[in-house]
Order: sequence, then structure tokens, then C-alpha cells
Amino acid sequence: MPLRSHLIFLIPTMSINNPYRQNLDFLLYDWLNVATLTARPRYAEHSRETFDQALDLAATIARDFLAPCYKKGDQVEPWFDGERVQLIPELETAVRAVVDAGLIAAGQDEAFGGMQLPKVVDSALWTFGLMANIAACAYPYLTKANAALLLAHGSADQIEKFARPLLAGRFFGTMCLSEPEAGSSLADIRTRAVVQPDGSYRLFGNKMWISAGDHELTENIIHLVLAKIVNDDGTLPAGAGGISLFIVPKKILDENGNSGERNDIALAGLNHKMGYRATSNCLLNFGEAKFKPQGSAGAVGDLVGAPGKGLAQMFHMMNEARIGIGLGATMLGYAGYLASLDYARTRTQGRAAADKNPHAPPIAIIEHTDVKRMLLAQKSYVEGALALNLYCAMLVDDEHTHAEPARRAEAKLLLDILTPIAKSWPSQWCLAANDLAIQIHGGYGYTRDYNVEQLYRDNRLNAIHEGTHGIQGLDLLARKVVMQKGAALALVDREINTTINRAKSNNHAAFQAYADSLASHWQHLLKATLHTHASPDINIALANSTSYLEAFGHIVIAWLWLDQALALASRNDDIAIGKMHACQYFFVSELPKVGAMLALLDSRDTTALTMRDAWF
Amino acid sequence: MPLRSHLIFLIPTMSINNPYRQNLDFLLYDWLNVATLTARPRYAEHSRETFDQALDLAATIARDFLAPCYKKGDQVEPWFDGERVQLIPELETAVRAVVDAGLIAAGQDEAFGGMQLPKVVDSALWTFGLMANIAACAYPYLTKANAALLLAHGSADQIEKFARPLLAGRFFGTMCLSEPEAGSSLADIRTRAVVQPDGSYRLFGNKMWISAGDHELTENIIHLVLAKIVNDDGTLPAGAGGISLFIVPKKILDENGNSGERNDIALAGLNHKMGYRATSNCLLNFGEAKFKPQGSAGAVGDLVGAPGKGLAQMFHMMNEARIGIGLGATMLGYAGYLASLDYARTRTQGRAAADKNPHAPPIAIIEHTDVKRMLLAQKSYVEGALALNLYCAMLVDDEHTHAEPARRAEAKLLLDILTPIAKSWPSQWCLAANDLAIQIHGGYGYTRDYNVEQLYRDNRLNAIHEGTHGIQGLDLLARKVVMQKGAALALVDREINTTINRAKSNNHAAFQAYADSLASHWQHLLKATLHTHASPDINIALANSTSYLEAFGHIVIAWLWLDQALALASRNDDIAIGKMHACQYFFVSELPKVGAMLALLDSRDTTALTMRDAWF
Repeated sequence: MPLRSHLIFLIPTMSINNPYRQNLDFLLYDWLNVATLTARPRYAEHSRETFDQALDLAATIARDFLAPCYKKGDQVEPWFDGERVQLIPELETAVRAVVDAGLIAAGQDEAFGGMQLPKVVDSALWTFGLMANIAACAYPYLTKANAALLLAHGSADQIEKFARPLLAGRFFGTMCLSEPEAGSSLADIRTRAVVQPDGSYRLFGNKMWISAGDHELTENIIHLVLAKIVNDDGTLPAGAGGISLFIVPKKILDENGNSGERNDIALAGLNHKMGYRATSNCLLNFGEAKFKPQGSAGAVGDLVGAPGKGLAQMFHMMNEARIGIGLGATMLGYAGYLASLDYARTRTQGRAAADKNPHAPPIAIIEHTDVKRMLLAQKSYVEGALALNLYCAMLVDDEHTHAEPARRAEAKLLLDILTPIAKSWPSQWCLAANDLAIQIHGGYGYTRDYNVEQLYRDNRLNAIHEGTHGIQGLDLLARKVVMQKGAALALVDREINTTINRAKSNNHAAFQAYADSLASHWQHLLKATLHTHASPDINIALANSTSYLEAFGHIVIAWLWLDQALALASRNDDIAIGKMHACQYFFVSELPKVGAMLALLDSRDTTALTMRDAWF
Repeated sequence: MPLRSHLIFLIPTMSINNPYRQNLDFLLYDWLNVATLTARPRYAEHSRETFDQALDLAATIARDFLAPCYKKGDQVEPWFDGERVQLIPELETAVRAVVDAGLIAAGQDEAFGGMQLPKVVDSALWTFGLMANIAACAYPYLTKANAALLLAHGSADQIEKFARPLLAGRFFGTMCLSEPEAGSSLADIRTRAVVQPDGSYRLFGNKMWISAGDHELTENIIHLVLAKIVNDDGTLPAGAGGISLFIVPKKILDENGNSGERNDIALAGLNHKMGYRATSNCLLNFGEAKFKPQGSAGAVGDLVGAPGKGLAQMFHMMNEARIGIGLGATMLGYAGYLASLDYARTRTQGRAAADKNPHAPPIAIIEHTDVKRMLLAQKSYVEGALALNLYCAMLVDDEHTHAEPARRAEAKLLLDILTPIAKSWPSQWCLAANDLAIQIHGGYGYTRDYNVEQLYRDNRLNAIHEGTHGIQGLDLLARKVVMQKGAALALVDREINTTINRAKSNNHAAFQAYADSLASHWQHLLKATLHTHASPDINIALANSTSYLEAFGHIVIAWLWLDQALALASRNDDIAIGKMHACQYFFVSELPKVGAMLALLDSRDTTALTMRDAWF
């Protein structure tokens, strides 16, 4: 199988005995039991050994190619030389290494050159790159999502012409959703698609925030563009139902699938961001007649599926895309945690509180309780978030490959309701972890000589793109918890109670307390959910949706911490004791915050709702 | 008086009717009643009119000189040209405007060319510059602190030679405390001072993180340097008691006070920071013989006061310095709040939750409840923090100029205990405000085209310098609440109860609830304080000092919000209603967080304390 040919690149000397890999192995093999997936026909050729080889390969590429240019990619951001968008050459080499290792197609069918890995292993594999250089990974990572969308919704011809070279990394892809005046409100997009006599389409409009929207890394760039097909009377259909999806390549393919003439897509500008700088971020103008393919203006586009299905097609992939954002946020947090752990072990400063001898040598700052607190907080955030992200990835596997149809349906429902959490919680709390990583470094952490300030800047994006934090709250409270008469919420209830009951029947004293605390906060949330939806006024019901999202998130992470702890209960090694401590940290320092968050729902607080513009 | 000559620069057209100035006027004149200060002999020549004129002047300079180069000062940070540290010319012009307006000496005696303004008005005056361009303000702001230290501890000759030109802005000043291996632990500094036959000193050592440590803005730079005087046996005294304070000018002054020969101070490097970039931040080497003043190596230094008093002298000014940091953090938060308020009023996106008509035009995002929530949160943070900072500045006035000696002593004690809060709370929560300001801007806020990402980067420094967040927690819990048998804590208790009792006797229903909530959390904190200090183990007692600091901070801000609300109780205008809403936001969404924070103290939680290095 293709996996073997990729593994030829493996450098056998790489160290896998680091705190991150140890935790990843625990999560995959001890907690999620991903080795059991090899019993499914799709993964029958795999084994723990092949999973490990793929992880080793990804780790090696991250270490040898991606990490070395993380800093420089920030210092020298993509620039427009008058004709092309240029990147530093180190980025090109690093991205090429990712491509050559076959990581884009790692989760796809062998028939498409993929490794046919389970989604959960595919996700784990990408964690190394995201941790080492998230902005460089964005190019292949977006390409992977783009190709997956085409595999799900494209015609056989579109898959052959576009998805296959995307999976091979010969083309890279983008998603073109937002416009300068339509970001959170996609229903208001104004990009027009005009049908041509031959049945093809020409697109006209401006797309904003296009990550990897232009570069010279690949011979072609395949844009997936949301646009509205112009009505016969020249108007645009209103609302989300009028949105269609188009394939719009930077260079039009000839009959043999080779990149030819430039399409009518012009770079209108590069955005200069606070972080995530190595990913070019573009304003693209479609159909402004900068280029005239086949002699006339308008960007040539190929409709995907039926007209009017664009948003649904895009949202079909949204769960995975949002979990991908969450995973990126998690790994930025993880990178900061590991950096500050390393720093705290080597930096000496001050003495123990009880030590009054000024002649005593200074101690490593990891010995100071407040530094340990900041490390434990980070550990509880990043390991909790990673557990959630991998749990969700495993749900994707169950949704697609579980033997039982009922479990497949359940997995999909669980995924639907957990996605807003898997996206927003890491974006919020792994950024908080990055803040603590800076704090542990003191003044040094505020300089650009260390990585932690860059991780913090990079991570700040994640609460914004792919649906803002506020949008996730509305999605959870207004849609997800009530869909199918609360069926998804009932599933979460069942899963949480399974963990609670296992904890209660365990004789470890701490588990009883954790189980009680988790049960109490979860019951509180369920009551608050009913109380909120009993409000006759939708404005009041949704007024505290962000607080609801954050409370739900904290409970989910506490649940998964308790579930991880149960998998460690019989162990007494350093790793297990450390994780038990992080679990305890989360239960004593984080979970109690939920009470104050839900109080707003209990009282149907209208402080924000009733505030008026003139009063600010 | 000199004030008049400064006011000649006043541009009469400047608008003062903005939300910031309205709130500032409320805080100064309606809440703190600063006009009553003019009854004190020192301020007898002042009136509300002269206060307003000074504020107008500062606001004009901020608008016309400081704000325009805020962005460019970040984009083009200070650079070393091989001989000198260079800044963009716009910064020099802006800093010169601050100097020419007499702002450095605004709070000092007329005899030193000052305006003899009360500290609270002096602080208010600087808020405009801090809001417009904090990194540019750092040069004169540090100079002001440097001069104040010399006025308090220098000899008449030192004041004449150094403090006077500093106050006039002819020289700028720095504070040289940290070293590469000694930041939070100043007792471990290794810079040596060697006494010379003539009684002068030569200094040798490396100083790190020196803000404004080198530049060409002024003809000379006066460093105030902490160093240890070498013992007769060549050793250095151990601990904080061995630290002395020296005046070490970049250029040695001749007998007429003119800047002459270069002192033996070499720039060893510029730090490249995440934010606050326009302030040069230097590693300075003293006595490495790059220059040889009067023919021999060693930086010529002038001892301030008695040997061994350096840290005490520095800490004598520390309350004011830390309140200054807090004020800077507050104003960065305020700038972000105003920017996001403006953006939310003009940016349109989406529709009301209840509106299902896709043809309806989009609404301004300020109409969305979650955006109002983010604005209200910011308002509650920045207006709460500003109230605290100005309250503390008023305490400085009372400490120095109140007619009653008992009140002077009380003011000093209150200031001592509130300083860790006044420094740390704005650094934490006005950074949180900046985070929300970015979020309101969406993707635009993540670009460097808007100011909010820069405000966020700039503000991240404030939890680090002048004593980290963790150091503030230890200062509060280990020193301030127990000093003089808890006298300072008793004073806070008295002041909070005064406000609570006034609220209870007010017939506004909300006030009863606020008073009860505040009383309950405050009693909780007092109990937790006693419980914590009853621990026989100092490690356990201090294990949750940061949580204690944060709980104390939230209670203090709630108290000052309630106190502000009482001053508004009879009003029904937009500003008053808006502030009442922000007060309510703080009481319903923020104050309840205190319960979870104090629970760690109640249980003497040892999760962080007992964690071990090997378990991470």
C-alpha cells in the first residue's frame, strides 16, 4: 500500500519519548483504543505499527522542516512583488516535505493515493505540524479540506480533474466564503454567477479573508467559491438558499487537466495580520476583467452539484473544518505549554517562600508554586482540549465506518452538538494557555526571541475564523441542543452519565468527588437549557448564548478529564500521576466557574439585551 | 503661574464632548470631587477651570501629536545604526510636544517649573497620552518618575543638577533594576559599585529590560541604577539590604551641569518585543571599558542617600510606579473599547434573531446582544479600572496634602494595600477588554490596519513589568493584608462598608441587591484571609495567592462600581443609565466569579503546591 512508499522518508533516530508523544499515545491507544479500528474493513491493512509509523513520519517532518522556519515565516510575511505573491523559500521546502510525505491524502482512499488512515489517526498525525508551524500547514491543510469537499459533492469528472491533483499536492485549494460586507452573515454574499450558453458559469464579485488565496507554491490554486446564480430578471436570490458552490481555478485546465490560461481572478490585496503571518491572506476580485479567459471577462467556474446547495455542501464539511480549527488552537496551546515547561525547568530565580537565607542559590522557577499553577493550568487546558478534538475525530470515524447503523447515526449527532465546543473551547482556553506561557517566561516571553509571543498572536485568530465565538454559542443554544427534539443533548447526557457511573463504582476516593461535581454541574446545565428554551421571547432565550457555550464547554472538558482519569486509575507512573493532578486542577480551579456562567441563564439575565447604543 | 504659559499652546477648537471625557469629568468632579482639593494651600491657585485647561491641553497634544504616530512607531521600531539608537522623527516631534507643554512637571512645584497640580489631576492629564500612544509616552513618563525619586531622596545638589533638567525635559531618565539573571528577585543583582579615593563610585555590571535606555531624544539620559557596593574583601553584600541607588548619566556633567564626556555605559542590545515597540528597550553594560571617562573604565555613579537604602528608596516610589502601570493598562483597554464601540456603530452585518426576512437590510452590529455584551464587559472593565486608578491617585494627594495627619496616614495605608490591585487588575482585565475589542472587529480586528491588535499586544506587557502578576499576589497576601496587624485591611473594610451602608439606605431597589452581594463576597474574603493566615505552613498559606489577588481585585472593582453608581443615583441621562448598566453587568457577570476563586483559599487547596517537576 502507498503508506510503505511514504515511510521510506522516515528518519529512525527521532525521539518519540517526549511528553507530547507520551500523552498522544495514551489518548490514542489507552483511552480511545484506536487500535480496535483495524477490525473495520476500511482499515484492515492497518495496525498500531502502521499508525505509529505514520505518526513518526509526521513528527519527523514537523521537526526537520516545519519547526525551523516558524520564526522566519512570521518575520518575513508573504509579499506581492508586483506580479506574484512570494513566500520565503524555507516555507516552500517545508510545505513540499509535507506534500511528499503524502500527508494531504493520509485519510483518503488508497485509490486516490491515500494512506486510508482513520480520521482520528489522520488528525493526530497533523498535530505535529500544527504545533511546529501552523501557518505553513495551512496551505496543505486547506487543500485537504477542499479535496474532501469535492470528493463528497463533486462529479466523477470534477474529482478526477481537481480532487486528485489536490490530494497529490500538485494543486493547492482554498475556500472562498466571506466578502468585505458578508462574513458571519453569508446569506448576504453578492458574488454573482452568470450562466453561459454552454452551461458553464462566469463569476463576478469580491472575496475577503482568503487564506492561501495566492502564492507560487503550486502550479495552480483551486478556489471553492460561494456565489449566487443570477435570476433571469438580473436580481440575486435572497438568503442562504440562493447560494451555490463553484470550482474556480486560478488557471483554467485544458482537456488533459494541465493548468493553462489565467482565469479572471485578480489579487486585490494581502491582509497584514497580527499573527498566522506565513499564511497569505487575500482579497480576491473575480471577474474584474484583469484577465479575459477565452476572450471575455468573468471568472470561469464549474458548478458543484445542484444550484442553491452551496451552503449546505459547505456546511456538510463544517464539522470537520471547525474541529480542525479547534485542533490548531489546541496545538498552539500545546507548543506554548511545552516551551514554558522547558523554560521553567532551566530558568533559576528566587528562593522557596520558607527559605530566608539570601546566600542560598536560586532555584529553578518550576519549584515556585505559582509557576506550577501556571503549568498545571496549561496542562489541563491543552490535554483536555486535545482529548476533545481526538474524541470528535473518532466520532467522524464512527459516523462513516462503524458497523452498526445506529452507532453511525449517534456519532453524527454527537459530533453535531460537540462541534461548537470543539471549535470554541480550544480557541479560548488554549489562547489562555499561551498567555500563561508568556507569563512564565517573564520579560523574555514578551520578546520575539522566544516562540511564545508568536504562538499567542497566531492563536488569537482561532476565535474569529470559521464562525466566531458568538456564532458558535448561537449554533449550540439555538440549534444543536434542540435539534431532533433534543436527541443530541440526550446522547451527551448518556455519555456523561456513563462516565459518572464508572467513576462512582471506582474505589478511588477522588473519583467520587469528581463524579458528584460533574453530575451537579451537568444537571444545572440541563435545567438551564430547559428554562432558557421555555422563554417565549427568542431575544431573551438567546441573550446569554455565549455564557451557555462556555459553561457547556467547561463541563465537556471536565467530563473528558474524568474519563481520561478512569483510564489511568490503575497506573502509578509519573505520567499517570501528572495527568491525575491536571484532572484535579480542572475540577478544583475550572469547573466551579460554571456556576457563575449558568446563573445568567437561570435568571434570564437581560443586562446586555436591554443596553442601548446611546448609553455607551 | 507657569500653567498660563503652557496654556498658550491650547487649541480651543478641540472637542471635549466625547464618551471618554464625559466619564473622566464624572469621575473627577462628581465622584471624587477633586475641586475640593483647591481648598488645600498647595493647590490654592487652582480651580476647576485650570484643571480643565490642563486636561484640554493634554488631550490636544494626544490628538495632534501622539495619536498620529502610534501605528508607525509600532511598524518601525527603534533601531541601532551602529552608533546610536534611532527613532522615527514623528516620535521625536510628539515627545517634544509633551515636553513643551510642561507635562513632565505638571504635578511638581512651581519652583521646579511645575504646574503644581494634584496627583489625581496629573494622572488624569496623562491618560490622554497613554490612550493615544503609550510607547511614546514612556520616555517622558519614566522621566517624571525618575525625577520624583530624586526629589524625594536626592541631595540638594543632585536635585539641582539632575532633577531640574529632567523635569524640564532637557534630560530623560530611566530606572535600571533588572539584570539578565535577576528580575523578580532583585536581591540577587550583581552590578558592583566600587568606591573611589574621591568618594565617587564606579559601576560594573549588566542591566536588562531598560525602557528608554538609549535614544537621541535628549542631550543626556540619567540612569537610576541599583547596585551593590563592594565590601572591603571584594565580596558583594547578600540580600536586599546590600543594594544602593546611584545616579549614572549617559554623559558626565561638567561643573556647569552641561553634558560632557561619555560615561562607561555601552548598549549591548535592543530587545525586540511583541508590543510597546516604540519604546526602546535595552541591555546596557556598565563598566565594560567601552568608554573611559577621565581615563579609566567603570561607569561614574553618584550615590543617592545612604548606602544600602537603594531598594527602600526605589520601593518608596513603587506605589506610584505601579499605579502608573495600572493606569497605562487601563488606557490601552479604554482605547480599544472606544475603537470597538465606534466600529460596532458603523459596521453592519446580519439581522435581529427574531427577524426572518432575508430581504431586510443588515443592522449595525451594536444591535446584536452578544456585541452589546462585549461592549458592556469592556465598559465595566475600563471604567472600573480607571475609577480605581484615580481613587489611588487621590490617595497619594491625601497622603501628602490632607490637612489631618490621621487621614494622611490612612491614605498611605490604603494606598499600600490597594497598589497590587491597581497594578494587576487593569493589566489582566483591560487586556481582556482588548481581546473583546478585537473580537468585535472580527477578521478586521486581527489585521494591522486597525489599532485594536496593537493595543492588545502593547497591553500584554503590563502583567510582567514592575512586579509580575504573581509577585503582586504574594505582596498582597503575604505582606499587605497582615501589615500593622491588618490595619490596612481594616481600612478597606471600613471604606467598603461605608459604601454598602450608603447603598442600603438608598431606595433604589438594585442598590440593595448590589450591597448584599458585595457584603457577602467581602465577608467571604475576610474569612478566607484569616483562614489562610491561620495555616502553620507558609507554603500552604501562599499556595493560592494569585487566586486571592484576583478575588480581592474583583471585589474592589465591584465596590468602586457601586460607589460610582451611588453618585449617579439621582440622574436619568444617557451617561448615567449607561454607567448603571455597566455596574449591573459587573455585579451579575463578574462578581460571582469570586466564589470559585476563594473556594481554593477555603479548602487550602494544594493541587499546584504538591505537583512535581517529573509529573509534567
